[in-house]
Amino acid sequence: MPTYTAPVKDTLFVLEEFLNIYQHKDLPAYADATPDIVQAVLQEGAKYVQEISHPVNQTGDEQGCIRNEDGSVTSPDGFKHAYDKLVEGGWIGLSCNPVYGGQGLPHVVATAFEEYMISGNMAFTMFMGLTTGAIASIEAVASDEQKETYLPKLIEGTWSGTMNLTEPHCGTDLGLLTTKAEPQADGTYKISGTKIFISSGEHDLTENIIHLVLAKISGAPDSVRGISLFIVPKFTLDSAGNPAERNAVSCGSLEQKMGIHGNPTCVMNYDGATGYLIGEAEKGLRAMFIMMNVARLGVGLQGLAISELAYQNAATYAQDRIQGRSLSGPKNKTGKADPIIVHADVRRMLLNIKAFNEGARALALWGALQVDLAHLADSSEARQRADDLIGLLTPIIKAYFTDKGYENATNAQQCLGGHGYIREWGMEQCVRDARIAMIYEGTNGIQALDLVGRKLSLNGGRAYRIFIEEVNLFLDDSSEQAMNVFCAPLRNSLDDLNRATAWLSKHGVNDPDSAGAAAVPYLNIFALVAMGLMWGQMARLCQHNLATGTGSYDEDFYRNKLVTAKYYFSHVIIDSSTLRQRVEAGAEAIMALEQSAFVA
Amino acid sequence: MPTYTAPVKDTLFVLEEFLNIYQHKDLPAYADATPDIVQAVLQEGAKYVQEISHPVNQTGDEQGCIRNEDGSVTSPDGFKHAYDKLVEGGWIGLSCNPVYGGQGLPHVVATAFEEYMISGNMAFTMFMGLTTGAIASIEAVASDEQKETYLPKLIEGTWSGTMNLTEPHCGTDLGLLTTKAEPQADGTYKISGTKIFISSGEHDLTENIIHLVLAKISGAPDSVRGISLFIVPKFTLDSAGNPAERNAVSCGSLEQKMGIHGNPTCVMNYDGATGYLIGEAEKGLRAMFIMMNVARLGVGLQGLAISELAYQNAATYAQDRIQGRSLSGPKNKTGKADPIIVHADVRRMLLNIKAFNEGARALALWGALQVDLAHLADSSEARQRADDLIGLLTPIIKAYFTDKGYENATNAQQCLGGHGYIREWGMEQCVRDARIAMIYEGTNGIQALDLVGRKLSLNGGRAYRIFIEEVNLFLDDSSEQAMNVFCAPLRNSLDDLNRATAWLSKHGVNDPDSAGAAAVPYLNIFALVAMGLMWGQMARLCQHNLATGTGSYDEDFYRNKLVTAKYYFSHVIIDSSTLRQRVEAGAEAIMALEQSAFVA
Repeated sequence: MPTYTAPVKDTLFVLEEFLNIYQHKDLPAYADATPDIVQAVLQEGAKYVQEISHPVNQTGDEQGCIRNEDGSVTSPDGFKHAYDKLVEGGWIGLSCNPVYGGQGLPHVVATAFEEYMISGNMAFTMFMGLTTGAIASIEAVASDEQKETYLPKLIEGTWSGTMNLTEPHCGTDLGLLTTKAEPQADGTYKISGTKIFISSGEHDLTENIIHLVLAKISGAPDSVRGISLFIVPKFTLDSAGNPAERNAVSCGSLEQKMGIHGNPTCVMNYDGATGYLIGEAEKGLRAMFIMMNVARLGVGLQGLAISELAYQNAATYAQDRIQGRSLSGPKNKTGKADPIIVHADVRRMLLNIKAFNEGARALALWGALQVDLAHLADSSEARQRADDLIGLLTPIIKAYFTDKGYENATNAQQCLGGHGYIREWGMEQCVRDARIAMIYEGTNGIQALDLVGRKLSLNGGRAYRIFIEEVNLFLDDSSEQAMNVFCAPLRNSLDDLNRATAWLSKHGVNDPDSAGAAAVPYLNIFALVAMGLMWGQMARLCQHNLATGTGSYDEDFYRNKLVTAKYYFSHVIIDSSTLRQRVEAGAEAIMALEQSAFVA
Repeated sequence: MPTYTAPVKDTLFVLEEFLNIYQHKDLPAYADATPDIVQAVLQEGAKYVQEISHPVNQTGDEQGCIRNEDGSVTSPDGFKHAYDKLVEGGWIGLSCNPVYGGQGLPHVVATAFEEYMISGNMAFTMFMGLTTGAIASIEAVASDEQKETYLPKLIEGTWSGTMNLTEPHCGTDLGLLTTKAEPQADGTYKISGTKIFISSGEHDLTENIIHLVLAKISGAPDSVRGISLFIVPKFTLDSAGNPAERNAVSCGSLEQKMGIHGNPTCVMNYDGATGYLIGEAEKGLRAMFIMMNVARLGVGLQGLAISELAYQNAATYAQDRIQGRSLSGPKNKTGKADPIIVHADVRRMLLNIKAFNEGARALALWGALQVDLAHLADSSEARQRADDLIGLLTPIIKAYFTDKGYENATNAQQCLGGHGYIREWGMEQCVRDARIAMIYEGTNGIQALDLVGRKLSLNGGRAYRIFIEEVNLFLDDSSEQAMNVFCAPLRNSLDDLNRATAWLSKHGVNDPDSAGAAAVPYLNIFALVAMGLMWGQMARLCQHNLATGTGSYDEDFYRNKLVTAKYYFSHVIIDSSTLRQRVEAGAEAIMALEQSAFVA
């Protein structure tokens, strides 16, 4: 059975030394985030995951969710208990608004905890993941009355949220959606239609389920411009705000899927269900995108979290499994063989994952800090800057982290040889669970198009300029010889990024297919540079701490970071030049084949 | 439900025009392989797969195999029927020795058929795949009497074969194996021990199962040098050679695994089972490696075959799924949206798979031709040359094909968006099935070590020199301007390969860890060049046929090949330079981390 230990030490290094979040103590939310509180939250959070939610991860996968004849859905054994404990601890509202009962801590702290939650049990965490998104949407666009009605229960966790976009013939292209909303005399709407792929659409963990549903009000334009957002509660509320009557929304069936078996993926039927418009009519997509952006960062985090879980188990196996001898002579001389971690190829696989995990943790938490600053910073310039950065980085974090999460889970599985393919070891579950993250909340191809088609050029390319300035600033500040091993490769990759961007500006407008063909390799160059910036900055910090004897960690900790940073710059970031060549190769070879020639 | 159509046209292009197998008609086996026969075999083979074995692929995955209380194993519904039809058609012995009832066709033809079999139903094909390996081992090392006893039934398919190497604590490192063989007065042995991961170890498809088992005879050296190979039949035979008494070998349990559910992966218990030594005592590993090499090429073929199955279903979906609009303006103007194949990013994913499939098919069949020539060519030089080439290419085909097979199945799944994650569409089964091929018959990391540690330097590097000569010969013969688009990138990658090889010769001996660290990237450079040779040669042929109006295919066929070839050289092969940089980066960053630092 797989095991998991939350990487609290590494998280704290990122929060306290790398990001130095305490420097923001004058901002709301950060005032309460003292070292004592942050450390206690992470330690208690780790304990919860290790003792409560992780132990039901593998059994949850085996049992899956069951839809009963009456349309109700039973979650796997232990999930209800784990969920109750989550509510009891106030974990769901960790960074939510205290006005509605939240703990009011920074988003960056909640993100750190969320990583542990996903590592421990991804399918289970999805029950709370969409609640967080629903909270963000409601808080952003709903009326005060709606906020007071729904937010306290969602933040508490006694109700949960869902996100209803997809229909059988409508995924990415929301203009095609056909779910209808008929206005009623009392100001409510009757919602009718079928939504598919609804995570946590029906289950037995909460007293009520608050569906956020995209639909078109009768007479609205038949395009994305005609979409509105509705709240459709599973139970409509009585005058005291308590769940009362069963609404006409039900789970028609559960999908049989590759992974995340512990979370029910529902077909949801809306048969004239009572819905409440939130935000303005026909501005539903904007409101949903608030939820979607939260969700996309959460999905990116899934990539990191599964990569971490898989890594820990692979590294432990590689230290335990005795097989063969080191190529450079026996290391475990008294044994019949050496542990396989002596082999350079096994270390290569592990280091590759480790370099991703630690770099991605830094980038995810840096991103979460930007989310905080975008809301809380004390000048509009600072808020704008943070918002620009996280807007630009969101598709990159979503796509790169989840591609790597899956790849890393696969390589961690590979470290176990044949045992990796067997269920009981838990590695193949990591792979199956990780796979969905590349698909949902917009496939990774869609993320890449969001980056090249929208985020890059937004506000005249302002966000891109800010990001590049940040990299240049780091490089300019790191001219000492000892930093060259990190900065030279970063400089090369930055050059690849700038050249690829220039190529896109030149060709993308006149030949949109060339932008489409370039999007995925372009996103990956960007990700390598963003990860490179994190690794470069961390390396500088570690060198500084070692040189000056400062920092609150042992010397080995900093030295190991530097070794891992070196691996990143010698083995990982160097992919950018081939990726740039792919961008520059254009769309010709890709568009030349006749459509019919794709199928023999 | 996924569908499959065997790519007979493409196979025939490779066999007839690219390899021109009929030029070998003076060789035994090839004499009977007339165009009529070859075409009929492929068409009938395709029909068998499409109508009989593929329709039970998805149900086989869902049902899996069941171990009954008495230790017997029941295969999924329809497998017995499909197997009987296979035996009836004489398919198992397609390229086997006619002396023992085989059809005596070239291995290259059987390989073409095997690709279809795996695409159609990989788990089912594994029942016959190991029989083929057992036949090869028995034919190579057993006594005449043993051959007469076992080969006819194995070739007919009424008995099947297995390969028993792995034990709970002994996988790659066979020196650790503990299964014992006690010599008996009658010349037989009593075999005792536990073997794991035994594919088709117990089932209900055949009258007998012939286990080939590695064990140590009492008193033999406790290392790989002490290993012998035994035949242990499930039923020992009566004097007429018919299955009689149940031998003391039984299936203790079935593994629950990620994929290939239709094939039972057995724990096999040997409790003093009667075994018969085959070949010389303590030369068991050599005998097993005959089987293993056959199996490794077969596993490589699994990568290609699943990639083809996944590709076909993704390409069909991309033509059918209506969603969004082309970035360069609507293509399906009367519809509400365009098919997603209009998008450059979807085409990129598909072309990437197509370029692999067609190149890999050429390389797999070229490799199978070398296997034939290694046995049949009329001079010892020609046999030696073919044997050198296939020996060198075996780890490359095994590892590269299976890595790509999994990656391609994953990307094909991605083309279906959310539907790719749902079982009924069949794409996630492709991914789960493809995954094992990177692990079994020696993990892909082990293949890379076989290449750099053994195959490269064998006979003073003779095989490598022959291969490089072949590439240079092609480049020298292709100096016309029109070939430059293919040859220039191939020349660059060949240069990367030669530089990486030179680096290995210089550093690998003194620092074996640097060879270990370089092995996987090195293998991938080699694979890119080998695939590049195939694509270059095919491109030259297609250009020639188009220019001269020769060849038996339509012009579109040749033009489409050229488009795909261009994609290969502009987008795929260019990875070699980064891979070379990884080789040249050496082992320092990889070996620097303390063993204990891998686990937090």
